Amino acid sequence: MNKISEQILNELREVVQENRILVKKSELYSFSFDASFGEYLPDVVLQPQSKEEISKIVTIANTYRIPVYPRGSATSLSGGPLPTMGGIVLDMSQYPKAISIDKENMLAIVTPSVITASIHDKAEEEGLFYPPDPSSSHVSTIGGNILENSSGPKGLKYGTTKEYVIGLELVTPMGEIVRTGGKTVKNVTGFDLTRLIVGSEGLLGVVTEITLRLIPKPAHKMTLLASFQSVVDSGRAITNILSAGVLPAAMELMDKYCIEAVEHYQPSGLPIGAEAIVIIEVDGHEASVNEEIDKCSDICRSFPGAVVKVAKSEEERVKIWKARKMVSPAITQLGPTKISEDATVPRSKIPEMIERLHQIRVKYDLNLVVFGHAGDGNLHPNIITDKRNIEEMKRAESAVGEIFQAAIDLGGTLSGEHGIGILKAPYMRSELGPALDLMKMIKQAWDPHNILNPGKMFPQKGQTKVVLTQNE
Amino acid sequence: MNKISEQILNELREVVQENRILVKKSELYSFSFDASFGEYLPDVVLQPQSKEEISKIVTIANTYRIPVYPRGSATSLSGGPLPTMGGIVLDMSQYPKAISIDKENMLAIVTPSVITASIHDKAEEEGLFYPPDPSSSHVSTIGGNILENSSGPKGLKYGTTKEYVIGLELVTPMGEIVRTGGKTVKNVTGFDLTRLIVGSEGLLGVVTEITLRLIPKPAHKMTLLASFQSVVDSGRAITNILSAGVLPAAMELMDKYCIEAVEHYQPSGLPIGAEAIVIIEVDGHEASVNEEIDKCSDICRSFPGAVVKVAKSEEERVKIWKARKMVSPAITQLGPTKISEDATVPRSKIPEMIERLHQIRVKYDLNLVVFGHAGDGNLHPNIITDKRNIEEMKRAESAVGEIFQAAIDLGGTLSGEHGIGILKAPYMRSELGPALDLMKMIKQAWDPHNILNPGKMFPQKGQTKVVLTQNE
Repeated sequence: MNKISEQILNELREVVQENRILVKKSELYSFSFDASFGEYLPDVVLQPQSKEEISKIVTIANTYRIPVYPRGSATSLSGGPLPTMGGIVLDMSQYPKAISIDKENMLAIVTPSVITASIHDKAEEEGLFYPPDPSSSHVSTIGGNILENSSGPKGLKYGTTKEYVIGLELVTPMGEIVRTGGKTVKNVTGFDLTRLIVGSEGLLGVVTEITLRLIPKPAHKMTLLASFQSVVDSGRAITNILSAGVLPAAMELMDKYCIEAVEHYQPSGLPIGAEAIVIIEVDGHEASVNEEIDKCSDICRSFPGAVVKVAKSEEERVKIWKARKMVSPAITQLGPTKISEDATVPRSKIPEMIERLHQIRVKYDLNLVVFGHAGDGNLHPNIITDKRNIEEMKRAESAVGEIFQAAIDLGGTLSGEHGIGILKAPYMRSELGPALDLMKMIKQAWDPHNILNPGKMFPQKGQTKVVLTQNE
Repeated sequence: MNKISEQILNELREVVQENRILVKKSELYSFSFDASFGEYLPDVVLQPQSKEEISKIVTIANTYRIPVYPRGSATSLSGGPLPTMGGIVLDMSQYPKAISIDKENMLAIVTPSVITASIHDKAEEEGLFYPPDPSSSHVSTIGGNILENSSGPKGLKYGTTKEYVIGLELVTPMGEIVRTGGKTVKNVTGFDLTRLIVGSEGLLGVVTEITLRLIPKPAHKMTLLASFQSVVDSGRAITNILSAGVLPAAMELMDKYCIEAVEHYQPSGLPIGAEAIVIIEVDGHEASVNEEIDKCSDICRSFPGAVVKVAKSEEERVKIWKARKMVSPAITQLGPTKISEDATVPRSKIPEMIERLHQIRVKYDLNLVVFGHAGDGNLHPNIITDKRNIEEMKRAESAVGEIFQAAIDLGGTLSGEHGIGILKAPYMRSELGPALDLMKMIKQAWDPHNILNPGKMFPQKGQTKVVLTQNE
């Protein structure tokens, strides 16, 4: 890839105002990392304010073969926005933030720079509901959520982000502005480019507008917290509930290490001493909510030593969810480096996956904690380590490889919602086989100069395992 | 495209048993048409029984540049399986039919030759539910449903077929056997090829296995039939119900011409004299079903002259739906040629679309009837004509063009579920603009010799309007 010369910079200055072009090292530094790890300094940061600006930037980048790295709030856990090959970071923070709710058609039309939580708020003001809710939704942008297809706890009942995106406007890797999909849930006019872009991790286009389908807001919800004396029991409880025909809005699991971390960080009334807890939320009509919460309670209580507490007030409900949202910040206190995985398995395999994770923890003597969206098989094993401790990082590397292998062995997938980025790229071939080549063909056809987010998703030549230790 | 020589036939005979190779004109004839119109004789019909056979057939077809046309039950209304350029029809009727229900993971793993209704049956035996239900589901195959993303009445509440397909096995246009997706709802490992294949109309691969997500079967359902003195009122009732926060499982509209056709064909107790009827079904918990059906009744009754009848028994419920399913066969009695469209608009535009359709009916003096899945904006305007009447077909051509234009003008789409096929291809550019080129790039990259289902979806050079009169 080429470096940015003064001549190229001058061309970019004709597109973007001087105050939205960052070139000083001190300014560039903030754009060298995301919520995963690894640091890569870009050559320039551009802050576009219109799709036309983005189109022109991408066109210039094509002419001079400069990489372009789109960036939202950079909460990516897989290195999504990292400028691994230098070049341009396309920082969307100055892009206009617009949310327009179309109540009659139950749609939200938003710009990519909008914080996802504000879509929740605006929808609920109109009695509507946007179910996807990544843990980071109060800080992450909808543009990032869409490019990673990150979805959070409600995928179980409501599906993932993808199921809510019905139209997009984007700038293609060649700089063209195009629209895909539209305003109707039913649309079979040509290939489904909309869903191809969702989860494409910024390799196929820069999204500039998003049309989201909304649904009526559920009238009632109830939440319970069940504690178990065995983490495998907690996994069995989850599969038993689903087999009983109950489809909760969310079923979240936390193992004892997470419980301890949260209680240590900010006491939240979680049952210290339990091996695992499961938080279950059901929603819908009041009558069904009451019946379903009873069914869930009964199933959980059927396990030896299990204790169930149903939230009796909105205050108690909020407190339970606050404790859940505390997991990430709490475990961050356990060490400076957090490797957050999202290997996902068919939900019947959750007890087995939990067993495998336990074995990996012991084998590599690592601080491996497990929580996540267990209802849809989307666990988040996290390894808390210190990237300066090269020896421990090497063990973590091997452990991560085994986590991926366990997920694939159990019929699951490398990533449920964090994306592949740079961290999981080496394992793509082992899961996908020849399907990987079909993906590369699309990238090659749309982005012949490999301008958009290069270095992500596809394994580099000779890469066969994840390398967590940089500069070696 | 090349013709099939005796040498090529001999190579095919090494792949497929002689009794599954049809070459006699009398045998080929049955494969020259589908449920749309137009007749195209293939050179040979092959009836594969394994993915390996399909892989070898496609490889031979690539070597000799022979078109391959996959075919399920041929219920396509857009010319999907028609062998417009001769060559090979890949008839899936002899392919093994297998349905495996994985209750614990709420999945169905099926082969493409399975009739969709049998998936409904098998799922329900296990207390599970597969919502997509095209009108043809008792005869059409799941392979065809998936390649067209045809979905039927329940898209409104439950989403389309696409929302239920989470994994595929397919033979690529180059003859390779690949897998996409998997068994988990959450899966962001690479681009979403699964959803790219769904609705790809057989241009990107021959599907050989499908993994479907199932959901718990709703415990209760209720159905009402509301008649209106104005078809625009019926459209308003639909949007008012949705605005009131009720999300019925289905909202089906029939105009007076459909009512008359059904009552003439097989008296079903529909209200002759009404300008339109709407059938509404709500499902879920008993308490919510009762409340929602009351809300729907009240909203419908608020229109002058509207009459609402709630089905009081399962027998009455079934009778209402039987009348709805009778529309297609009934209107077929009105004339030998039926042009069935599925232009779809944002649901708030239904009243306006109905007005536009009425104007088109009058302007071109055609037997244009309207029914469809009004709840999700997916109307089915049908023109009943006679393809031997060239003058009337010319008027129908113009009318079809105006229907498409009306849908696009109102922010809708050419096709909600029938697919583009040969009938709507000329209008693709006007809806999609440069997105059409992105689609073509994928086709070109995956199928460089244009082997799989050529002549479909993409407009031919110089084509700017639909031509219903063949051989001119």
